[in-house]
Amino acid sequence: VRSRIVTLLTDFGFDDYFVGAMKGVILTRSPSVTIVDITHTIPPHDIFAAAFILSAAYSYFPAGSIHLAVVDPGVGSDRRPILVETPEYLFVGPDNGLFSNILERVSAARVRHVTNSEYFLPVLSSSFHGRDLFAPVAAALANGKSPETFGPIISDPVRLGPAPNEPATEGAIVGSIIHVDHFGNCVTSFESDRLGTLPAARGFCLSVKGVDIRKLRSHYVEAGVNAGEPFLIAGSAGYLEISLPCSSAARKLNIGVGEPLRLTISG
Amino acid sequence: VRSRIVTLLTDFGFDDYFVGAMKGVILTRSPSVTIVDITHTIPPHDIFAAAFILSAAYSYFPAGSIHLAVVDPGVGSDRRPILVETPEYLFVGPDNGLFSNILERVSAARVRHVTNSEYFLPVLSSSFHGRDLFAPVAAALANGKSPETFGPIISDPVRLGPAPNEPATEGAIVGSIIHVDHFGNCVTSFESDRLGTLPAARGFCLSVKGVDIRKLRSHYVEAGVNAGEPFLIAGSAGYLEISLPCSSAARKLNIGVGEPLRLTISG
Amino acid sequence: VRSRIVTLLTDFGFDDYFVGAMKGVILTRSPSVTIVDITHTIPPHDIFAAAFILSAAYSYFPAGSIHLAVVDPGVGSDRRPILVETPEYLFVGPDNGLFSNILERVSAARVRHVTNSEYFLPVLSSSFHGRDLFAPVAAALANGKSPETFGPIISDPVRLGPAPNEPATEGAIVGSIIHVDHFGNCVTSFESDRLGTLPAARGFCLSVKGVDIRKLRSHYVEAGVNAGEPFLIAGSAGYLEISLPCSSAARKLNIGVGEPLRLTISG
Repeated sequence: VRSRIVTLLTDFGFDDYFVGAMKGVILTRSPSVTIVDITHTIPPHDIFAAAFILSAAYSYFPAGSIHLAVVDPGVGSDRRPILVETPEYLFVGPDNGLFSNILERVSAARVRHVTNSEYFLPVLSSSFHGRDLFAPVAAALANGKSPETFGPIISDPVRLGPAPNEPATEGAIVGSIIHVDHFGNCVTSFESDRLGTLPAARGFCLSVKGVDIRKLRSHYVEAGVNAGEPFLIAGSAGYLEISLPCSSAARKLNIGVGEPLRLTISG
Repeated sequence: VRSRIVTLLTDFGFDDYFVGAMKGVILTRSPSVTIVDITHTIPPHDIFAAAFILSAAYSYFPAGSIHLAVVDPGVGSDRRPILVETPEYLFVGPDNGLFSNILERVSAARVRHVTNSEYFLPVLSSSFHGRDLFAPVAAALANGKSPETFGPIISDPVRLGPAPNEPATEGAIVGSIIHVDHFGNCVTSFESDRLGTLPAARGFCLSVKGVDIRKLRSHYVEAGVNAGEPFLIAGSAGYLEISLPCSSAARKLNIGVGEPLRLTISG
Repeated sequence: VRSRIVTLLTDFGFDDYFVGAMKGVILTRSPSVTIVDITHTIPPHDIFAAAFILSAAYSYFPAGSIHLAVVDPGVGSDRRPILVETPEYLFVGPDNGLFSNILERVSAARVRHVTNSEYFLPVLSSSFHGRDLFAPVAAALANGKSPETFGPIISDPVRLGPAPNEPATEGAIVGSIIHVDHFGNCVTSFESDRLGTLPAARGFCLSVKGVDIRKLRSHYVEAGVNAGEPFLIAGSAGYLEISLPCSSAARKLNIGVGEPLRLTISG
C-alpha cells in the first residue's frame, strides 16, 4: 500500500512554528502519510493568489492526494470549514473562495461543511484552525475515513469567480494580470489557446500600461531577439504570459496582479 | 514499524547547502527516517527566537520524535553538544540555552553531554557541527542507539530562563513581547489563562508604547470592530497576543521582541 | 528495499506552483521515492551559484541518490537536457554548466544527452521542463530505468571551469570570492589545505578590497578576539572563508561573489 499524500498550501510563512505544528499533528494521527509543501508564502490573507497557485499545482499529484489549503483570515469566525471531493482528489480548508478554481473546472465536485468535531484536536484554538481542525481532518481522510463522516453536502460554497475577460470596443477583449511568478513573468487571464490556434496570417496586439506587445514566442531565449522587448509566451499554467528574456517583466514594465490588459486580434 | 521522525530547526536559511548536507547525512545513516523542517529561518544566532519556536512546535509531533536544533554561534569553541531526554522526545543541539523552555516545562528532563565521537563524521569541521556532529548523532538515535551511549548526564546546562513577568506598582504586571509572528501578531510573555478566567465584570488594560488595549477578542475578524484598533487574543502558542484585524500589529504599532508591556487588571 | 532519494535544486523560489508541480510529477510516477530539497532559492538564472551549492551538498547523500538540478534560462531553446552518471550518483538537468564541478571532480563521470521522449510528460511546455521533462526522467531513473535508456553519451557538455587561481607577482596567488553564505561568510577560491599545512613559522596575507587579513582561526568565536577584525577559517565546503565573529563579513567589508583576492604566503 502506497502512503497517502497530503499537500500543504498556506500563508503561514516558513519562519514560524505554524507549519511545523501542522505537520506534527498530521504525522501523529497518520504516521505513514507523505507531506508535500506546495507553498507557505502566499501573501498574508491573499485568497485570490492561493486559489491560483492551488489550481496550477494540484492536478500534477497522484490521484487520491489530499490537498490541505489554509489561507484563513476569517479563522475563528463563523466561516465554514469545508471539504471538497472531486473524482481524483480531496481538498480541505476554509470556505472563503480558496477552491473556486477547482469548483469551476470540475463540475462533478461536491462540497461538504465539516461539522463533525470528533476528529478535531481536543481543544480548538480560535486563531489556528490549520493545526487544530484542518490538519487532523486531513489526517483522518488520509487514514481512510469517508468524506460523508465529516458533514453534510452544501450547495453554496463561496466562489471568487474567474478573472473576467470581457468583450470591449473594436473587437478587443479586456482582461487582467492574475499572477506574477518568481521570475517576474506576468500570467494573464487569457488562456494560451486563444492565440495558440491563431493562423499565421493574423496578428495580435496586447496592450498593457501603454506598451503594445505583438510577438508570441515559443521560449524565453531566442536568437536575434531584442532583449529589452517584452513578448507573450504560452505559459506552463495554461495562460498567456508577458515575459522579458532573463529579466522581470513585472519590474521592468512596473505591472502587477490586477493590471488591466487589452487584447486585439487583427486580420 | 513506523519510521522515526527527525525535525530540524536551524538558522541556516534555505539558500545554502547547509540544510541539504544535513539531510543527506541523516538519510545516509538512517535511510528510513522521516525528516520534517520546523524552520531554517531563525534570525542568525538568535537563540532566544529558536527556543520560542521550538517550544511552540515540538509537542505536536509523535512521541519518539527526535528534535534537532542548531542555532550555534559558538560552533567549534568549547560549548558542549548536548542531548536532552524527556519522557516523550529526544532533543539534540548545542548547549547554549536552545532547550531552556523544554527544561522549564518538563521537570523529568535529563541532559547529557555528547562526548562519544564514534557517531560523528570522520572529519569534524570547526564550523559546521550541524552536518558533522549533530546530524549523525540524531541519525544514530533514530537507529535506536540508547541516549547513554552518547555521554554522561550533566546538571548545569545553559538556561536562558523564561521572559520575566514582574509585579509593578498599583497591581500591574510588567512583561514583554517575546515573539512577532509571520502576520505581525505580537506574542506577549503573559500566558492566556491570565485573562481567560477573568470574570466579565472586571476589566484590564495592556499598555504598550503609549497605547492602551482594553479589548479581548476571540478571533481576528469580528463584526462591528474598528479595523484600526488593536486587541488582545488568546494565541495558539498559549500566550496573549497583540493583534490588528488583517494587518500587522508589529508594524502599525512599531513594536517588536523585547518591547516592555504593562498589564493591569481592574475591578 | 529502501526508497530512492531524489534531491531538488532550482531557482524556482518557494512562492510559486513550480516546485509543487515538480514534486507531484515525481510522486505520481515514482510513489515510493523520498524527495529532499537542497534549495530552490538560487538567484534566478545563476548557474554559477547553483553549481557551487550542488557541489557542496551532493556528496553527503546516500549512494544511489538522484540529483535533479534545474536552473535553466535556456529552457525551450536547443540547449540539451543531460544525465550525468558517476559511480555513486545520477544527475539530471540542462546542459549549461550546472554540473561543471561534478565533472571536474569525478573523472569517471559519463554524460548522456536525454533524447528519449518516452518518459517526458505527454505535452511538453516550452517554459517548464523541470516539470515536463526533468522530473519525469528523474522518476524513471528512481524506478530503475537504466541511464542508457535515455540517450547517447556525449563528450562535449558545457563546462564553466573552476574559478581560476592564478600566480601573480611576488609569489602571490590571485583568486576570487566564489560564494557568500547565509551568514555573510565569503567562500574564497582557495582550498583550505593551501593554508592548513602551513608551518607555524610562516605567515600569510589575504588582501581583499584594501583590507589585509593575517589571522587564520579555527572557529568563529574565540576569546580575546577583536570582534571587528576579519579572519580566515577553513570552511565546511573545503575552501578558506573570510569571516567576522557573529556578523556578516560580506556586508561589513562590502564584498561579494567575484571580488578579486590576493594571497601571499611569507617566510
